Amino acid sequence: MKFHTRKLVKPEDLNSNGTLFGGKVLAWIDEEAALYAIVQLENAKIVTKYISEINFMSAAKQGDVVEIGIEVVKFGKTSLTVNCEVRNKMNHETIVTVDNIIMVNLGIDGKPHPHGKTKIEFVKDRLAAANEA
Amino acid sequence: MKFHTRKLVKPEDLNSNGTLFGGKVLAWIDEEAALYAIVQLENAKIVTKYISEINFMSAAKQGDVVEIGIEVVKFGKTSLTVNCEVRNKMNHETIVTVDNIIMVNLGIDGKPHPHGKTKIEFVKDRLAAANEA
Amino acid sequence: MKFHTRKLVKPEDLNSNGTLFGGKVLAWIDEEAALYAIVQLENAKIVTKYISEINFMSAAKQGDVVEIGIEVVKFGKTSLTVNCEVRNKMNHETIVTVDNIIMVNLGIDGKPHPHGKTKIEFVKDRLAAANEA
Amino acid sequence: MKFHTRKLVKPEDLNSNGTLFGGKVLAWIDEEAALYAIVQLENAKIVTKYISEINFMSAAKQGDVVEIGIEVVKFGKTSLTVNCEVRNKMNHETIVTVDNIIMVNLGIDGKPHPHGKTKIEFVKDRLAAANEA
Amino acid sequence: MKFHTRKLVKPEDLNSNGTLFGGKVLAWIDEEAALYAIVQLENAKIVTKYISEINFMSAAKQGDVVEIGIEVVKFGKTSLTVNCEVRNKMNHETIVTVDNIIMVNLGIDGKPHPHGKTKIEFVKDRLAAANEA
Amino acid sequence: MKFHTRKLVKPEDLNSNGTLFGGKVLAWIDEEAALYAIVQLENAKIVTKYISEINFMSAAKQGDVVEIGIEVVKFGKTSLTVNCEVRNKMNHETIVTVDNIIMVNLGIDGKPHPHGKTKIEFVKDRLAAANEA
Repeated sequence: MKFHTRKLVKPEDLNSNGTLFGGKVLAWIDEEAALYAIVQLENAKIVTKYISEINFMSAAKQGDVVEIGIEVVKFGKTSLTVNCEVRNKMNHETIVTVDNIIMVNLGIDGKPHPHGKTKIEFVKDRLAAANEA
Repeated sequence: MKFHTRKLVKPEDLNSNGTLFGGKVLAWIDEEAALYAIVQLENAKIVTKYISEINFMSAAKQGDVVEIGIEVVKFGKTSLTVNCEVRNKMNHETIVTVDNIIMVNLGIDGKPHPHGKTKIEFVKDRLAAANEA
Repeated sequence: MKFHTRKLVKPEDLNSNGTLFGGKVLAWIDEEAALYAIVQLENAKIVTKYISEINFMSAAKQGDVVEIGIEVVKFGKTSLTVNCEVRNKMNHETIVTVDNIIMVNLGIDGKPHPHGKTKIEFVKDRLAAANEA
Repeated sequence: MKFHTRKLVKPEDLNSNGTLFGGKVLAWIDEEAALYAIVQLENAKIVTKYISEINFMSAAKQGDVVEIGIEVVKFGKTSLTVNCEVRNKMNHETIVTVDNIIMVNLGIDGKPHPHGKTKIEFVKDRLAAANEA
Repeated sequence: MKFHTRKLVKPEDLNSNGTLFGGKVLAWIDEEAALYAIVQLENAKIVTKYISEINFMSAAKQGDVVEIGIEVVKFGKTSLTVNCEVRNKMNHETIVTVDNIIMVNLGIDGKPHPHGKTKIEFVKDRLAAANEA
Repeated sequence: MKFHTRKLVKPEDLNSNGTLFGGKVLAWIDEEAALYAIVQLENAKIVTKYISEINFMSAAKQGDVVEIGIEVVKFGKTSLTVNCEVRNKMNHETIVTVDNIIMVNLGIDGKPHPHGKTKIEFVKDRLAAANEA
């Protein structure tokens, strides 16, 4: 799994227990899955359809750095399924794991629309191909 | 199921598709589950332990009013399990359902601690009992 | 008065005194009045016109749960007047009361527009009537 | 009245009507009154006690610049009363006026505490006096 | 230099060190420069083009009041250059200074567009002139 | 340069021109530099001391994905200097570059404190070393 996005746990991210608020973690995961799908499917009209069970395995506190990993599970016809792990950057302790997040590709009519993708693409390859053409 | 908290969908709640951002809904659900547990368990040191699978069944758009319902599934020894539905207030269309959200009661040492509760209590009954005492 | 929306007081809601920031309470009240009017008047183009005097009667601190109650005072021709109480959910101590909040119904031209409503309606009755039709 | 603080109306400040959200204006007013009192009373433990009626006289839209004016009404023993106007910076059209906002000075015990001030002071005079001493 | 906008340092503005988050100061500076340019150039389509080096000279903590000063450096053909100082309102200690912030005036096509301004204008003079016409 | 953190441009990130707000980009850069320094220096008490000139080279719009790259320039005795590039993830167009951001390591007294680091370390190596010990 590749971990990209990092977040610093700040006062505004805390729950009333003084640890990282679960809802904030979920919002971070959803944004990461969405932007990953936007990049892969080359479409900004992406919505979350399904998130499988979420286990909160450890806590994080103010000043901690966390990182979010995403991995593709499956390319569907109109969807992309990924899994996700959020962990503490300093000690690699897992904070949350999610096995399946299904993002759906929408057309301009706001309905599910085939994205035509079947495997992971890298932006650098796309740009190289565009330069050659 | 009793629906209490209501939210107005505002520009800051939207994804890049112009509909209600999934991550925002998840943050709202987690806060509602947390405050419900705080009230039931009479303890502000509550953390989210587990959230079962989440289905996004319909979208909401700017200006929509949504409401969040919570129902107790089970009182554990140190936990409280609830389920949750978020729906459109105007047409009762379901936006998201979650079957099980497990909130854990922490002691002053930050570790799971028995809460001693076995059934739903109403604040008005607690206050009446306190007045009689 | 019916209390619906609940809020958990989080670090981001505090003033420099460490208690619930007055401006945050006012924003919560205004949103609750707005969404109540949106539901009653079946129109999302609603703006706040007037708020009567506001008394801050007690404070709230991090980890407290507050609830917001709204009651209709009067249906005007283009307006809806409500009153509001914010109280601590755990002990029913009043935090803020506001006697009159006037919300105005706008037409598509952005000007006050008759809403045609004269009494409180319940969404479940509207939906039942729609099903019968 | 001296107008100091200016705000740019951004997408996150809008209501579902696409104009400046009333609750956001109220939060801005309360923050301005609080910081004015903190400066005058030389104490950061200040809370809002009372806000008189609020008239929303005109709307503001995205990209507008608004400015907030504060004027002292009265120095009480433990309080400071100010009035406030929010207006459009470009055309001086009044958006909101509030005649009385009562801020209370708290001691380290969190209770109202005499502030010993009876008239407006300017920071530059305080600093000059401190330099002379 | 004229200092206008004031901000109260609140819990949501802090870094993990418990002092004012540098990124928050930068966002405040950019907003102040943008709204200053919007007022001077009478155009809401303004973007930041360049910010010269930024020195953080002292820290601020929760409950502090800071004020932001802006001064015009130069009117360009399609740009406006300003400098900026953020200081502690209570003791005039400088927090940050920035010598040059270049804001660019955009046309409706989103491209740099001559603004036709060559010197500072005051809104009250503009309004007086408009009244005479 | 390694690009890690990714951000989705959402409605709340826009200026009044409808493009990515400069102040938001600056806040993102500062957070990324801070968390990078926290990880390298193994200390959460880090503050921003200096940021060299910032060029905004292209704009981003709602739905765009941006990524933030950080590279070490120099390990000082109590500081860490990094440079930074923010670019559009989809076409690698540079949005902002900053040559030098100086982060300072603080001791428990809040004053600059030697960090004892002289080169980049990887968390996986630290963890491997800790496991061997």
